[in-house]
Amino acid sequence: MNAQSGVHDLIAEYCECIDEDRLEAWPELFADPCRYLVISRANHEAGLRQGVMYAASRGMLLDRVFSIRRANIFEPHRYRHVVGPTRIKSADQGVAVVHTHFLCVRIMHDGATSLFASGRYLDQIDVITTPYRFKERIVALDSDKIDTLLAIPL
Amino acid sequence: MNAQSGVHDLIAEYCECIDEDRLEAWPELFADPCRYLVISRANHEAGLRQGVMYAASRGMLLDRVFSIRRANIFEPHRYRHVVGPTRIKSADQGVAVVHTHFLCVRIMHDGATSLFASGRYLDQIDVITTPYRFKERIVALDSDKIDTLLAIPL
Amino acid sequence: MNAQSGVHDLIAEYCECIDEDRLEAWPELFADPCRYLVISRANHEAGLRQGVMYAASRGMLLDRVFSIRRANIFEPHRYRHVVGPTRIKSADQGVAVVHTHFLCVRIMHDGATSLFASGRYLDQIDVITTPYRFKERIVALDSDKIDTLLAIPL
Repeated sequence: MNAQSGVHDLIAEYCECIDEDRLEAWPELFADPCRYLVISRANHEAGLRQGVMYAASRGMLLDRVFSIRRANIFEPHRYRHVVGPTRIKSADQGVAVVHTHFLCVRIMHDGATSLFASGRYLDQIDVITTPYRFKERIVALDSDKIDTLLAIPL
Repeated sequence: MNAQSGVHDLIAEYCECIDEDRLEAWPELFADPCRYLVISRANHEAGLRQGVMYAASRGMLLDRVFSIRRANIFEPHRYRHVVGPTRIKSADQGVAVVHTHFLCVRIMHDGATSLFASGRYLDQIDVITTPYRFKERIVALDSDKIDTLLAIPL
Repeated sequence: MNAQSGVHDLIAEYCECIDEDRLEAWPELFADPCRYLVISRANHEAGLRQGVMYAASRGMLLDRVFSIRRANIFEPHRYRHVVGPTRIKSADQGVAVVHTHFLCVRIMHDGATSLFASGRYLDQIDVITTPYRFKERIVALDSDKIDTLLAIPL
Protein backbone atom coordinates (compact mmCIF):
# COMPACT_ATOMS: atom_id res chain seq x y z
CA MET A 1 0.00 0.00 0.00
CA ASN A 2 1.13 3.51 -0.72
CA ALA A 3 1.87 4.98 2.71
CA GLN A 4 0.28 8.35 2.08
CA SER A 5 -2.91 6.90 0.68
CA GLY A 6 -3.16 4.38 3.53
CA VAL A 7 -2.81 7.17 6.07
CA HIS A 8 -5.46 9.28 4.36
CA ASP A 9 -7.83 6.30 4.20
CA LEU A 10 -7.47 5.61 7.90
CA ILE A 11 -8.11 9.24 8.82
CA ALA A 12 -11.12 9.39 6.51
CA GLU A 13 -12.56 6.12 7.79
CA TYR A 14 -12.23 7.45 11.35
CA CYS A 15 -14.29 10.54 10.48
CA GLU A 16 -16.85 8.47 8.63
CA CYS A 17 -17.30 5.90 11.43
CA ILE A 18 -18.12 8.65 13.88
CA ASP A 19 -20.12 11.00 11.67
CA GLU A 20 -22.21 8.22 10.11
CA ASP A 21 -22.91 6.70 13.53
CA ARG A 22 -21.02 3.45 12.82
CA LEU A 23 -19.48 3.74 16.27
CA GLU A 24 -19.08 -0.01 16.76
CA ALA A 25 -16.53 -0.03 13.90
CA TRP A 26 -14.54 2.82 15.42
CA PRO A 27 -12.43 0.77 17.91
CA GLU A 28 -11.25 -1.47 15.07
CA LEU A 29 -9.30 1.46 13.66
CA PHE A 30 -6.93 1.25 16.63
CA ALA A 31 -4.14 -1.18 17.39
CA ASP A 32 -4.52 -3.16 20.62
CA PRO A 33 -3.19 -1.97 23.03
CA CYS A 34 -3.43 1.65 21.92
CA ARG A 35 -3.66 5.12 23.35
CA TYR A 36 -6.60 7.42 22.70
CA LEU A 37 -6.71 10.73 24.49
CA VAL A 38 -8.87 13.83 24.11
CA ILE A 39 -7.13 16.74 25.83
CA SER A 40 -6.87 20.49 25.54
CA ARG A 41 -3.84 21.81 23.67
CA ALA A 42 -2.72 23.76 26.73
CA ASN A 43 -2.82 20.71 28.99
CA HIS A 44 -1.12 18.57 26.36
CA GLU A 45 1.69 21.11 25.95
CA ALA A 46 2.02 21.25 29.72
CA GLY A 47 2.80 17.53 29.63
CA LEU A 48 -0.38 16.38 31.29
CA ARG A 49 -1.40 12.88 30.34
CA GLN A 50 -4.99 13.00 31.48
CA GLY A 51 -7.76 14.49 29.42
CA VAL A 52 -11.51 14.42 29.07
CA MET A 53 -11.59 11.05 27.32
CA TYR A 54 -9.08 8.24 27.51
CA ALA A 55 -8.65 4.64 26.41
CA ALA A 56 -5.72 2.23 26.37
CA SER A 57 -7.24 -0.69 24.48
CA ARG A 58 -9.92 -1.61 21.96
CA GLY A 59 -11.96 -2.96 24.86
CA MET A 60 -11.98 0.42 26.55
CA LEU A 61 -12.94 2.11 23.29
CA LEU A 62 -15.78 -0.36 22.85
CA ASP A 63 -16.94 0.20 26.42
CA ARG A 64 -17.38 3.86 25.56
CA VAL A 65 -19.47 2.98 22.53
CA PHE A 66 -21.64 0.63 24.60
CA SER A 67 -22.22 3.30 27.22
CA ILE A 68 -23.29 5.77 24.52
CA ARG A 69 -25.70 3.20 23.08
CA ARG A 70 -27.13 2.14 26.44
CA ALA A 71 -27.20 5.25 28.54
CA ASN A 72 -28.65 7.56 25.97
CA ILE A 73 -29.00 10.25 28.57
CA PHE A 74 -27.86 13.01 26.30
CA GLU A 75 -29.78 14.89 23.68
CA PRO A 76 -29.31 13.07 20.36
CA HIS A 77 -26.75 14.73 18.13
CA ARG A 78 -24.30 14.01 15.36
CA TYR A 79 -20.97 15.41 14.26
CA ARG A 80 -19.52 16.41 10.93
CA HIS A 81 -15.73 16.47 10.72
CA VAL A 82 -13.70 18.18 8.07
CA VAL A 83 -9.96 17.67 8.09
CA GLY A 84 -6.91 19.12 6.47
CA PRO A 85 -4.14 19.78 5.98
CA THR A 86 -2.61 16.44 6.96
CA ARG A 87 1.16 16.17 7.41
CA ILE A 88 3.23 13.03 7.63
CA LYS A 89 5.98 14.32 9.90
CA SER A 90 8.08 11.15 9.91
CA ALA A 91 7.83 7.42 9.23
CA ASP A 92 10.45 5.37 11.03
CA GLN A 93 10.44 1.76 12.12
CA GLY A 94 6.96 1.15 10.86
CA VAL A 95 5.33 4.04 12.70
CA ALA A 96 4.18 7.20 10.93
CA VAL A 97 3.81 10.38 12.94
CA VAL A 98 0.94 12.32 11.38
CA HIS A 99 -0.63 15.66 12.29
CA THR A 100 -4.02 16.74 10.94
CA HIS A 101 -6.04 19.90 11.48
CA PHE A 102 -9.74 19.35 12.07
CA LEU A 103 -12.98 21.21 12.61
CA CYS A 104 -16.02 19.47 14.00
CA VAL A 105 -19.55 20.83 13.84
CA ARG A 106 -22.35 19.41 15.93
CA ILE A 107 -25.87 18.93 14.61
CA MET A 108 -28.55 18.65 17.29
CA HIS A 109 -31.71 16.62 16.85
CA ASP A 110 -33.70 19.73 15.98
CA GLY A 111 -31.25 20.55 13.20
CA ALA A 112 -29.38 23.34 14.99
CA THR A 113 -25.78 23.32 13.78
CA SER A 114 -22.81 24.89 15.54
CA LEU A 115 -19.06 24.87 15.48
CA PHE A 116 -18.25 22.39 18.24
CA ALA A 117 -14.51 21.80 18.31
CA SER A 118 -11.29 22.56 16.51
CA GLY A 119 -7.80 21.24 16.96
CA ARG A 120 -5.26 18.72 15.78
CA TYR A 121 -5.05 14.98 15.56
CA LEU A 122 -1.58 13.94 16.71
CA ASP A 123 -1.26 10.37 15.48
CA GLN A 124 1.14 7.50 15.62
CA ILE A 125 0.06 5.08 12.94
CA ASP A 126 1.22 1.50 12.50
CA VAL A 127 2.10 1.36 8.80
CA ILE A 128 3.50 -2.18 8.76
CA THR A 129 0.32 -4.21 8.98
CA THR A 130 -2.49 -3.33 6.59
CA PRO A 131 -4.98 -1.82 6.88
CA TYR A 132 -3.15 0.79 8.93
CA ARG A 133 -4.19 1.29 12.55
CA PHE A 134 -3.75 4.01 15.17
CA LYS A 135 -1.20 3.09 17.83
CA GLU A 136 -1.93 6.47 19.36
CA ARG A 137 -4.36 9.25 18.60
CA ILE A 138 -4.21 12.38 20.71
CA VAL A 139 -7.08 14.78 19.99
CA ALA A 140 -5.56 18.12 20.99
CA LEU A 141 -8.42 20.60 21.33
CA ASP A 142 -7.73 24.28 20.75
CA SER A 143 -10.12 25.35 23.46
CA ASP A 144 -10.04 24.65 27.18
CA LYS A 145 -13.79 25.03 27.28
CA ILE A 146 -14.79 21.42 26.66
CA ASP A 147 -18.51 21.03 26.24
CA THR A 148 -20.08 18.97 28.99
CA LEU A 149 -22.02 17.24 26.24
CA LEU A 150 -18.87 15.48 25.05
CA ALA A 151 -20.15 11.92 24.78
CA ILE A 152 -19.40 10.85 21.23
CA PRO A 153 -15.65 10.54 20.57
CA LEU A 154 -14.06 13.36 18.64
CA MET B 1 -5.73 10.48 -16.20
CA ASN B 2 -4.97 9.29 -12.72
CA ALA B 3 -8.38 8.40 -11.28
CA GLN B 4 -7.82 9.93 -7.87
CA SER B 5 -6.51 13.20 -9.22
CA GLY B 6 -9.36 13.42 -11.74
CA VAL B 7 -11.90 12.90 -8.98
CA HIS B 8 -10.29 15.55 -6.79
CA ASP B 9 -10.19 18.01 -9.70
CA LEU B 10 -13.89 17.54 -10.42
CA ILE B 11 -14.84 18.04 -6.78
CA ALA B 12 -12.62 21.13 -6.53
CA GLU B 13 -13.95 22.62 -9.76
CA TYR B 14 -17.51 22.12 -8.47
CA CYS B 15 -16.73 24.13 -5.32
CA GLU B 16 -14.95 26.81 -7.30
CA CYS B 17 -17.75 27.24 -9.87
CA ILE B 18 -20.24 27.90 -7.10
CA ASP B 19 -18.10 29.89 -4.69
CA GLU B 20 -16.61 32.11 -7.41
CA ASP B 21 -20.03 32.74 -8.93
CA ARG B 22 -19.25 30.97 -12.21
CA LEU B 23 -22.65 29.30 -11.99
CA GLU B 24 -23.10 29.00 -15.75
CA ALA B 25 -20.18 26.55 -15.84
CA TRP B 26 -21.64 24.42 -13.06
CA PRO B 27 -24.04 22.29 -15.16
CA GLU B 28 -21.15 21.27 -17.43
CA LEU B 29 -19.69 19.29 -14.55
CA PHE B 30 -22.58 16.84 -14.85
CA ALA B 31 -23.23 14.08 -17.36
CA ASP B 32 -26.45 14.41 -19.33
CA PRO B 33 -28.83 12.96 -18.19
CA CYS B 34 -27.74 13.14 -14.57
CA ARG B 35 -29.20 13.22 -11.10
CA TYR B 36 -28.67 16.11 -8.71
CA LEU B 37 -30.47 16.07 -5.42
CA VAL B 38 -30.17 18.16 -2.25
CA ILE B 39 -31.86 16.26 0.59
CA SER B 40 -31.57 15.91 4.35
CA ARG B 41 -29.61 12.91 5.58
CA ALA B 42 -32.64 11.61 7.48
CA ASN B 43 -34.88 11.73 4.42
CA HIS B 44 -32.18 10.18 2.26
CA GLU B 45 -31.68 7.33 4.71
CA ALA B 46 -35.46 6.84 4.81
CA GLY B 47 -35.31 6.18 1.08
CA LEU B 48 -37.09 9.34 0.02
CA ARG B 49 -36.16 10.50 -3.44
CA GLN B 50 -37.42 14.06 -3.24
CA GLY B 51 -35.44 16.83 -1.67
CA VAL B 52 -35.22 20.59 -1.62
CA MET B 53 -33.46 20.84 -4.97
CA TYR B 54 -33.55 18.41 -7.86
CA ALA B 55 -32.43 18.13 -11.46
CA ALA B 56 -32.27 15.27 -13.95
CA SER B 57 -30.42 16.93 -16.82
CA ARG B 58 -28.00 19.70 -17.65
CA GLY B 59 -30.95 21.69 -18.96
CA MET B 60 -32.67 21.56 -15.59
CA LEU B 61 -29.45 22.59 -13.86
CA LEU B 62 -29.08 25.50 -16.25
CA ASP B 63 -32.70 26.53 -15.66
CA ARG B 64 -31.89 26.89 -12.00
CA VAL B 65 -28.92 29.09 -12.80
CA PHE B 66 -31.04 31.26 -15.10
CA SER B 67 -33.69 31.68 -12.43
CA ILE B 68 -31.04 32.75 -9.92
CA ARG B 69 -29.66 35.28 -12.40
CA ARG B 70 -33.08 36.63 -13.45
CA ALA B 71 -35.19 36.54 -10.34
CA ASN B 72 -32.69 38.03 -7.99
CA ILE B 73 -35.31 38.21 -5.29
CA PHE B 74 -32.99 37.08 -2.57
CA GLU B 75 -30.44 39.05 -0.64
CA PRO B 76 -27.10 38.72 -2.44
CA HIS B 77 -24.82 36.19 -0.82
CA ARG B 78 -21.97 33.85 -1.59
CA TYR B 79 -20.74 30.52 -0.28
CA ARG B 80 -17.37 29.16 0.70
CA HIS B 81 -17.04 25.38 0.65
CA VAL B 82 -14.32 23.40 2.31
CA VAL B 83 -14.22 19.67 1.70
CA GLY B 84 -12.50 16.63 3.05
CA PRO B 85 -11.92 13.88 3.67
CA THR B 86 -12.83 12.40 0.27
CA ARG B 87 -13.15 8.64 -0.10
CA ILE B 88 -13.30 6.65 -3.30
CA LYS B 89 -15.47 3.79 -2.11
CA SER B 90 -15.38 1.78 -5.34
CA ALA B 91 -14.69 2.15 -9.05
CA ASP B 92 -16.39 -0.46 -11.18
CA GLN B 93 -17.46 -0.39 -14.80
CA GLY B 94 -16.32 3.15 -15.30
CA VAL B 95 -18.22 4.63 -12.38
CA ALA B 96 -16.52 5.75 -9.19
CA VAL B 97 -18.55 5.96 -6.00
CA VAL B 98 -17.11 8.82 -3.97
CA HIS B 99 -18.09 10.28 -0.59
CA THR B 100 -16.86 13.67 0.58
CA HIS B 101 -17.49 15.58 3.80
CA PHE B 102 -18.19 19.27 3.35
CA LEU B 103 -18.85 22.45 5.29
CA CYS B 104 -20.33 25.48 3.62
CA VAL B 105 -20.31 28.98 5.10
CA ARG B 106 -22.49 31.74 3.75
CA ILE B 107 -21.28 35.31 3.37
CA MET B 108 -24.05 37.91 3.14
CA HIS B 109 -23.71 41.13 1.21
CA ASP B 110 -22.93 43.07 4.38
CA GLY B 111 -20.07 40.68 5.15
CA ALA B 112 -21.82 38.68 7.87
CA THR B 113 -20.48 35.12 7.76
CA SER B 114 -22.15 32.06 9.23
CA LEU B 115 -21.96 28.30 9.11
CA PHE B 116 -24.67 27.49 6.59
CA ALA B 117 -24.61 23.76 5.90
CA SER B 118 -22.70 20.57 6.57
CA GLY B 119 -23.02 17.12 5.16
CA ARG B 120 -21.74 14.68 2.58
CA TYR B 121 -21.51 14.60 -1.16
CA LEU B 122 -22.54 11.12 -2.31
CA ASP B 123 -21.28 10.95 -5.87
CA GLN B 124 -21.32 8.63 -8.82
CA ILE B 125 -18.66 9.87 -11.19
CA ASP B 126 -18.16 8.82 -14.80
CA VAL B 127 -14.43 8.07 -14.94
CA ILE B 128 -14.33 6.77 -18.53
CA THR B 129 -14.64 10.01 -20.46
CA THR B 130 -12.37 12.86 -19.48
CA PRO B 131 -12.77 15.30 -17.91
CA TYR B 132 -14.75 13.33 -15.36
CA ARG B 133 -18.40 14.22 -14.86
CA PHE B 134 -21.03 13.62 -12.16
CA LYS B 135 -23.59 11.01 -13.16
CA GLU B 136 -25.17 11.58 -9.78
CA ARG B 137 -24.49 13.97 -6.93
CA ILE B 138 -26.62 13.65 -3.81
CA VAL B 139 -26.00 16.47 -1.33
CA ALA B 140 -26.97 14.82 1.96
CA LEU B 141 -27.41 17.60 4.52
CA ASP B 142 -26.83 16.82 8.18
CA SER B 143 -29.63 19.09 9.30
CA ASP B 144 -33.35 18.91 8.56
CA LYS B 145 -33.55 22.65 9.04
CA ILE B 146 -32.94 23.76 5.48
CA ASP B 147 -32.65 27.51 5.19
CA THR B 148 -35.47 29.04 3.19
CA LEU B 149 -32.79 31.12 1.53
CA LEU B 150 -31.46 28.06 -0.34
CA ALA B 151 -31.22 29.45 -3.85
CA ILE B 152 -27.64 28.85 -4.93
CA PRO B 153 -26.86 25.13 -5.34
CA LEU B 154 -24.89 23.53 -2.54
CA MET C 1 10.25 16.50 -5.43
CA ASN C 2 6.80 15.63 -6.69
CA ALA C 3 5.26 19.03 -7.49
CA GLN C 4 1.85 18.31 -6.02
CA SER C 5 3.22 16.95 -2.78
CA GLY C 6 5.64 19.88 -2.47
CA VAL C 7 2.80 22.34 -2.92
CA HIS C 8 0.65 20.59 -0.33
CA ASP C 9 3.56 20.52 2.14
CA LEU C 10 4.15 24.25 1.79
CA ILE C 11 0.47 25.06 2.30
CA ALA C 12 0.30 22.74 5.32
CA GLU C 13 3.48 24.14 6.86
CA TYR C 14 2.06 27.66 6.46
CA CYS C 15 -1.06 26.71 8.43
CA GLU C 16 0.97 24.93 11.06
CA CYS C 17 3.44 27.79 11.58
CA ILE C 18 0.58 30.17 12.31
CA ASP C 19 -1.77 27.90 14.23
CA GLU C 20 0.98 26.43 16.42
CA ASP C 21 2.38 29.89 17.13
CA ARG C 22 5.71 29.28 15.38
CA LEU C 23 5.38 32.71 13.81
CA GLU C 24 9.14 33.31 13.54
CA ALA C 25 9.32 30.45 11.00
CA TRP C 26 6.49 31.87 8.92
CA PRO C 27 8.54 34.42 6.87
CA GLU C 28 10.89 31.63 5.77
CA LEU C 29 8.08 30.13 3.74
CA PHE C 30 8.30 33.10 1.37
CA ALA C 31 10.79 33.91 -1.35
CA ASP C 32 12.66 37.17 -0.92
CA PRO C 33 11.46 39.56 -2.31
CA CYS C 34 7.87 38.34 -2.19
CA ARG C 35 4.35 39.68 -2.09
CA TYR C 36 1.96 38.98 0.78
CA LEU C 37 -1.40 40.67 0.76
CA VAL C 38 -4.56 40.21 2.81
CA ILE C 39 -7.45 41.84 0.97
CA SER C 40 -11.20 41.45 0.58
CA ARG C 41 -12.35 39.53 -2.49
CA ALA C 42 -14.34 42.53 -3.69
CA ASN C 43 -11.36 44.87 -3.50
CA HIS C 44 -9.10 42.29 -5.12
CA GLU C 45 -11.53 41.80 -8.00
CA ALA C 46 -11.77 45.57 -8.36
CA GLY C 47 -8.02 45.57 -9.01
CA LEU C 48 -7.01 47.29 -5.78
CA ARG C 49 -3.54 46.44 -4.66
CA GLN C 50 -3.80 47.59 -1.06
CA GLY C 51 -5.32 45.49 1.66
CA VAL C 52 -5.38 45.16 5.40
CA MET C 53 -1.96 43.52 5.62
CA TYR C 54 0.94 43.77 3.21
CA ALA C 55 4.57 42.77 2.92
CA ALA C 56 7.09 42.79 0.05
CA SER C 57 10.00 40.97 1.70
CA ARG C 58 10.91 38.51 4.41
CA GLY C 59 12.10 41.44 6.47
CA MET C 60 8.68 43.05 6.37
CA LEU C 61 7.05 39.75 7.30
CA LEU C 62 9.44 39.37 10.21
CA ASP C 63 8.72 42.94 11.34
CA ARG C 64 5.09 41.99 11.66
CA VAL C 65 5.97 39.00 13.78
CA PHE C 66 8.19 41.13 16.02
CA SER C 67 5.44 43.68 16.49
CA ILE C 68 3.01 40.91 17.49
CA ARG C 69 5.54 39.56 19.99
CA ARG C 70 6.46 42.94 21.42
CA ALA C 71 3.31 44.97 21.38
CA ASN C 72 1.02 42.33 22.75
CA ILE C 73 -1.74 44.88 23.05
CA PHE C 74 -4.41 42.52 21.81
CA GLU C 75 -6.27 39.85 23.70
CA PRO C 76 -4.36 36.58 23.27
CA HIS C 77 -5.89 34.29 20.69
CA ARG C 78 -5.02 31.53 18.28
CA TYR C 79 -6.26 30.37 14.91
CA ARG C 80 -7.13 27.01 13.45
CA HIS C 81 -7.05 26.78 9.67
CA VAL C 82 -8.62 24.07 7.58
CA VAL C 83 -7.99 24.10 3.86
CA GLY C 84 -9.27 22.41 0.77
CA PRO C 85 -9.84 21.91 -2.01
CA THR C 86 -6.47 22.98 -3.44
CA ARG C 87 -6.09 23.42 -7.20
CA ILE C 88 -2.89 23.73 -9.15
CA LYS C 89 -4.14 25.94 -11.96
CA SER C 90 -0.90 26.02 -13.95
CA ALA C 91 2.83 25.45 -13.57
CA ASP C 92 4.92 27.29 -16.13
CA GLN C 93 8.50 28.49 -16.00
CA GLY C 94 9.02 27.25 -12.50
CA VAL C 95 6.03 29.02 -10.97
CA ALA C 96 2.89 27.17 -9.93
CA VAL C 97 -0.36 29.09 -9.67
CA VAL C 98 -2.35 27.50 -6.88
CA HIS C 99 -5.77 28.31 -5.40
CA THR C 100 -6.92 26.95 -2.06
CA HIS C 101 -10.18 27.41 -0.15
CA PHE C 102 -9.76 28.01 3.56
CA LEU C 103 -11.74 28.52 6.73
CA CYS C 104 -10.14 29.97 9.83
CA VAL C 105 -11.62 29.80 13.30
CA ARG C 106 -10.36 31.94 16.16
CA ILE C 107 -9.96 30.65 19.69
CA MET C 108 -9.84 33.35 22.35
CA HIS C 109 -7.90 32.98 25.57
CA ASP C 110 -11.05 32.05 27.49
CA GLY C 111 -11.72 29.22 25.01
CA ALA C 112 -14.50 30.93 23.05
CA THR C 113 -14.33 29.72 19.45
CA SER C 114 -15.84 31.41 16.42
CA LEU C 115 -15.69 31.32 12.67
CA PHE C 116 -13.25 34.14 11.95
CA ALA C 117 -12.55 34.21 8.23
CA SER C 118 -13.14 32.38 4.97
CA GLY C 119 -11.73 32.85 1.53
CA ARG C 120 -9.09 31.73 -0.91
CA TYR C 121 -5.34 31.62 -0.99
CA LEU C 122 -4.21 32.78 -4.42
CA ASP C 123 -0.60 31.66 -4.62
CA GLN C 124 2.35 31.87 -6.91
CA ILE C 125 4.80 29.26 -5.74
CA ASP C 126 8.43 28.90 -6.78
CA VAL C 127 8.71 25.21 -7.64
CA ILE C 128 12.30 25.27 -8.91
CA THR C 129 14.21 25.55 -5.66
CA THR C 130 13.30 23.16 -2.87
CA PRO C 131 11.69 23.43 -0.44
CA TYR C 132 9.09 25.40 -2.36
CA ARG C 133 8.46 29.00 -1.36
CA PHE C 134 5.67 31.54 -1.91
CA LYS C 135 6.61 34.20 -4.45
CA GLU C 136 3.18 35.65 -3.86
CA ARG C 137 0.32 34.81 -1.50
CA ILE C 138 -2.86 36.84 -1.77
CA VAL C 139 -5.33 36.07 1.01
CA ALA C 140 -8.65 36.96 -0.63
CA LEU C 141 -11.23 37.24 2.15
CA ASP C 142 -14.87 36.55 1.33
CA SER C 143 -16.09 39.25 3.68
CA ASP C 144 -15.48 42.99 3.59
CA LYS C 145 -15.99 43.09 7.34
CA ILE C 146 -12.40 42.57 8.47
CA ASP C 147 -12.13 42.18 12.19
CA THR C 148 -10.22 45.01 13.83
CA LEU C 149 -8.47 42.31 15.83
CA LEU C 150 -6.56 41.14 12.75
CA ALA C 151 -3.04 40.98 14.15
CA ILE C 152 -1.84 37.46 13.46
CA PRO C 153 -1.40 36.80 9.72
CA LEU C 154 -4.12 34.78 8.05
